[in-house]
Amino acid sequence: MKLYDSRRAPNPRRVRWFMAEKGIEDIEVVNVDLFKGEHRTPDYLARAGVANVPALEVDDELTITESVAICRYLETLYPEPNMFGRDPRETAVIEMWFRRVELMVAMPLMMAVRHAHPALAALEKQVPQIAEANRGWAERAMKMLNRQLSKSAFIACDRVTMADILAATSIDFARMVQFRPGEEFEHVHRWLGAMMARPAATAGV
Amino acid sequence: MKLYDSRRAPNPRRVRWFMAEKGIEDIEVVNVDLFKGEHRTPDYLARAGVANVPALEVDDELTITESVAICRYLETLYPEPNMFGRDPRETAVIEMWFRRVELMVAMPLMMAVRHAHPALAALEKQVPQIAEANRGWAERAMKMLNRQLSKSAFIACDRVTMADILAATSIDFARMVQFRPGEEFEHVHRWLGAMMARPAATAGV
Repeated sequence: MKLYDSRRAPNPRRVRWFMAEKGIEDIEVVNVDLFKGEHRTPDYLARAGVANVPALEVDDELTITESVAICRYLETLYPEPNMFGRDPRETAVIEMWFRRVELMVAMPLMMAVRHAHPALAALEKQVPQIAEANRGWAERAMKMLNRQLSKSAFIACDRVTMADILAATSIDFARMVQFRPGEEFEHVHRWLGAMMARPAATAGV
Repeated sequence: MKLYDSRRAPNPRRVRWFMAEKGIEDIEVVNVDLFKGEHRTPDYLARAGVANVPALEVDDELTITESVAICRYLETLYPEPNMFGRDPRETAVIEMWFRRVELMVAMPLMMAVRHAHPALAALEKQVPQIAEANRGWAERAMKMLNRQLSKSAFIACDRVTMADILAATSIDFARMVQFRPGEEFEHVHRWLGAMMARPAATAGV
């Protein structure tokens, strides 16, 4: 298997972090330079189907894109420590939470960065109203995260799961536009500190 | 089990459609009136955790929100016909596709409606630039869908899956703002016609 990776983008980092939590070291990692357009070459597009990283080439017949789909597939091959749920109830709670994080935190923060950071003007027709609205939505979602983290050490099932990896990588990425959860969200800060202190937080960073 | 549902919103429709494909008829459906704010009552919030529909109350300990998490949970109880994949490879391909659909089609079309339709001005501070940009992204994503549907009768694994339900309900919802895939996307139109002709398309509509 080969993982097509890119150092600066946030979604490949989810997969590197996930692999580090599981101690996966036997997958070849190939760097794709987005600023050189290496994700748009005919060869890459034929393999991945879309101009996105990360992509996991499993064999000649199957290349998976989408960070969460890649990680769930890897979990079937490297089951421990469990990140997607040990039974249908846990699986539901974890998916509920990583979807909330994806749609209310990760996607808005990604938009806030892409539509505001000068270095990304080359990749995107930036619209200031989009950056501003998305940043506001992410700020509002911190309240939801804080409430959940006031009841639990981690976002779902009281252990590190895919939901925590998505949330921590997104919030860390948004430092690019000086985003930081409000000081009043003490549980978010405690959790974020714990996440960023994990060895996996530095995987390929 | 009880499903908290709302007739006009697109995400509850995903679950109704999914249940109809599987012939699930033994779950009580409770209507939540969003315009009366019934999703914001203390009782509903205590149960669901967020002011969103749909929500599946499994028992006193577990209420699941998020359409895809609900459907994946239901699939463990009602396995046929399979909608999430029969093995890890199929599961990866289907999740890859429903995530692409969620992030590149469903989310943009939802934003295009919420930020442009007069009836929703009461629920949202509407920003015209957000509606316009999102509509453009969804239009571009039709090209990706059309390419995929030129190779296969359905979006993933050559049968109706969660990916098709997400895509069809979103495109149908966006008729509210006169969205229609461009005429040149003939494979999208053939597929959409087939989806909307299924009995499940009219479940609770």
